[in-house]
Amino acid sequence: MKCELISVGTEILLGDILNTNARFLSKELAALGISLMYQTTVGDNEGRLKSALDTAFTRADTVILTGGLGPTPDDLTKEVCAAYFGKRLFMREDILEEIRAYFSAKGLPMPESNSKQALVPEDSTVLPNKNGTAPGFIMESGDKKIIILPGPPREMEPMFRECVVPYLKKFSCSVIKSHTVRTFGIGESAMSERVSDLLESENPTVAPYAKDGEALLRITAKAESEEEADRLISPLLEDIRARLGCYIYGIDAQSIEEATVSLMKEKGVTAAFAESCTAGLCAKRITDISGASQVFHCGIVSYSNEIKSKLLGVSSEDLAHFGAVSDIVAAQMALGVKNISGADYGVAVTGMAGPTSDDPEKEVGLIYIAVTDGESLYLKEFHGRKNGSCRDYNRFVSASNAINQLRLTVINSPELRSEGNIKEFINSYPRN
Amino acid sequence: MKCELISVGTEILLGDILNTNARFLSKELAALGISLMYQTTVGDNEGRLKSALDTAFTRADTVILTGGLGPTPDDLTKEVCAAYFGKRLFMREDILEEIRAYFSAKGLPMPESNSKQALVPEDSTVLPNKNGTAPGFIMESGDKKIIILPGPPREMEPMFRECVVPYLKKFSCSVIKSHTVRTFGIGESAMSERVSDLLESENPTVAPYAKDGEALLRITAKAESEEEADRLISPLLEDIRARLGCYIYGIDAQSIEEATVSLMKEKGVTAAFAESCTAGLCAKRITDISGASQVFHCGIVSYSNEIKSKLLGVSSEDLAHFGAVSDIVAAQMALGVKNISGADYGVAVTGMAGPTSDDPEKEVGLIYIAVTDGESLYLKEFHGRKNGSCRDYNRFVSASNAINQLRLTVINSPELRSEGNIKEFINSYPRN
Repeated sequence: MKCELISVGTEILLGDILNTNARFLSKELAALGISLMYQTTVGDNEGRLKSALDTAFTRADTVILTGGLGPTPDDLTKEVCAAYFGKRLFMREDILEEIRAYFSAKGLPMPESNSKQALVPEDSTVLPNKNGTAPGFIMESGDKKIIILPGPPREMEPMFRECVVPYLKKFSCSVIKSHTVRTFGIGESAMSERVSDLLESENPTVAPYAKDGEALLRITAKAESEEEADRLISPLLEDIRARLGCYIYGIDAQSIEEATVSLMKEKGVTAAFAESCTAGLCAKRITDISGASQVFHCGIVSYSNEIKSKLLGVSSEDLAHFGAVSDIVAAQMALGVKNISGADYGVAVTGMAGPTSDDPEKEVGLIYIAVTDGESLYLKEFHGRKNGSCRDYNRFVSASNAINQLRLTVINSPELRSEGNIKEFINSYPRN
Repeated sequence: MKCELISVGTEILLGDILNTNARFLSKELAALGISLMYQTTVGDNEGRLKSALDTAFTRADTVILTGGLGPTPDDLTKEVCAAYFGKRLFMREDILEEIRAYFSAKGLPMPESNSKQALVPEDSTVLPNKNGTAPGFIMESGDKKIIILPGPPREMEPMFRECVVPYLKKFSCSVIKSHTVRTFGIGESAMSERVSDLLESENPTVAPYAKDGEALLRITAKAESEEEADRLISPLLEDIRARLGCYIYGIDAQSIEEATVSLMKEKGVTAAFAESCTAGLCAKRITDISGASQVFHCGIVSYSNEIKSKLLGVSSEDLAHFGAVSDIVAAQMALGVKNISGADYGVAVTGMAGPTSDDPEKEVGLIYIAVTDGESLYLKEFHGRKNGSCRDYNRFVSASNAINQLRLTVINSPELRSEGNIKEFINSYPRN
């Protein structure tokens, strides 16, 4: 089976919305072992949509379309596809009833325009929509298959998983299995050098890439069964683990926060965050993970110096003398939030996210991170970006570094250097 | 000029990365008044990339490609495009020097593979890359133009704005100007009904859409000059303002947080946030805005009940009796954080983000928001999603609602209902 995606929507061509559907479907198709050679986006236009179908069917036997199933006149994906296969549309009264019921459950009358969504191409399989009013469709004509899905991701994704995956599985005779090795604290080129010979491998393939300040390795095997794919991948994975050690925070982990939360659950430990430049982003990312309440109870966003002193007990003299972006302030913030919260670990981030610096001695991108268990202090200083759209990047990467520093502390990583006892560090800090 | 985009990269076809470049470029082209009819994504494959160019040039005169300019052998966009126009590649020693300098500024030697990035198609215009090592190119052949840009957005975007926009402007004879009216608190259909007659307008067009829990109206005019476009849009915009009133938080505002921060700066007021289910997301979003430090000093992420009592002074009895997700707890959180911080406004969010509820009496998606100026209390109860991937959505929309409730309080919106004095509300709350 050779598949193509067509995303339908003028709003995508105008850049109003980001095409997350194409990514979702690409990932799903890859997991099913179905080749996807092209993605196309086309506007809500009859002629151009028809021509996109023509082009797609010269290269593929199955075309998946998303979008253009709405109630307005410019929604015409279903109409164009039905005509493409020479099929009529007819009104399905039962679907019309369902759409009415959908609105009345919300206490609303059904707008007349929505009745269009109950029109169904003849000889098609209707895919029910649990999260909206537009059903999807599967149509076949000879060797050609058209699968039509609604545009909103929360309608499209469950419909694809529940109705389309079982359908497609019938046509896939090979399995593509892939794993992603996620690392933190090592650059893409340094990582690639450590595994350079493995990058030549043909099956599985090993491909490095960088994303959001992290370096990743994607290992992909093609095989006739899941078991065979696992057999191909497993020794390679062991080899990579040995070469990259503590830099690896997870295989197929969603994110550094997911890996850290699950590690902390396993160890039964808790952490609290004091955030300045990241201002809630660490807390937000940790609590993105369902069940984070077991390991996270408290965060303090101390954006001003006054709050750093008042809530976290940071010395006003140190703030005045060394500035908020300093290792000594980071250390006091970490200790302060540990004490207030009673958590096992206190984590602090303070830095110059940019775009400008309010301290002439501190460059944009300078970030300090401190983690303490109440005894030892683990500091990290790093330099993010200095210009351009640096703010979002610096904040994101600062939060990633803070969460990773917590992870390294929890696993007691040999790569982490302690600054010794945190209270001694604070008391004996050179203040002259 | 008719333009097409080709995104090159197997990682996009595998769903490893989200194609944000296509969105960025689409938006930029729309602003330049350049028609974009199709976007295509193709893998790092010589034959298929060539065939994508063939198809694109049957429909457009200008093709913009992103990606595939890296140092590895599978990066071949430049090679395929040069061959397409029958051009050779030659080594530019000055570019090679720049790439070497880029690495040595980072204290690194240049990996040998990067020298490939100094190969330049003959007769092309080289676009310098300030944020990376791969230059971009503009190539012309007869009426056909190929523009090649690097894949990483932070390299591509400034290169496009600085080098490609001035180039494209020469070919655009009309101006497309558009404004987005952003609303909060009104659904897409309710908004559309209020402006239904305007949706028929042909130039400017008025198109409603929904995004992330907000309803938006995009007004787009095509004209021969900016001034003429403004003349077309201006009366329509006034009309829409009158019809949608306080629901509008901004015209062309980036986000509810941006509009709120700029409103607060204007009024010279500050706010502090106490967050439970959003857990830092309000603070993060407010501080995404550069200069937020003028209006935001402090956030408390009180994820556990213990922290709600200890830091914010929420009554433990009320927590035990009414649960953390209740209006009375929201009110006490808001007052608590106002008192701790000394800010003009205290804002609190508490809710069941999901995917599961830990209180049998509270449904997933139930959210309470409280805003206080220390005197009055403004409460909002709302219901997010109950299932599916509800957690991210509920958290995001809860934060949006909290920020919007703050905005409505700051502008003293007539649509906001006060619960009266906050201390009286708390003291006289029915506790039996």
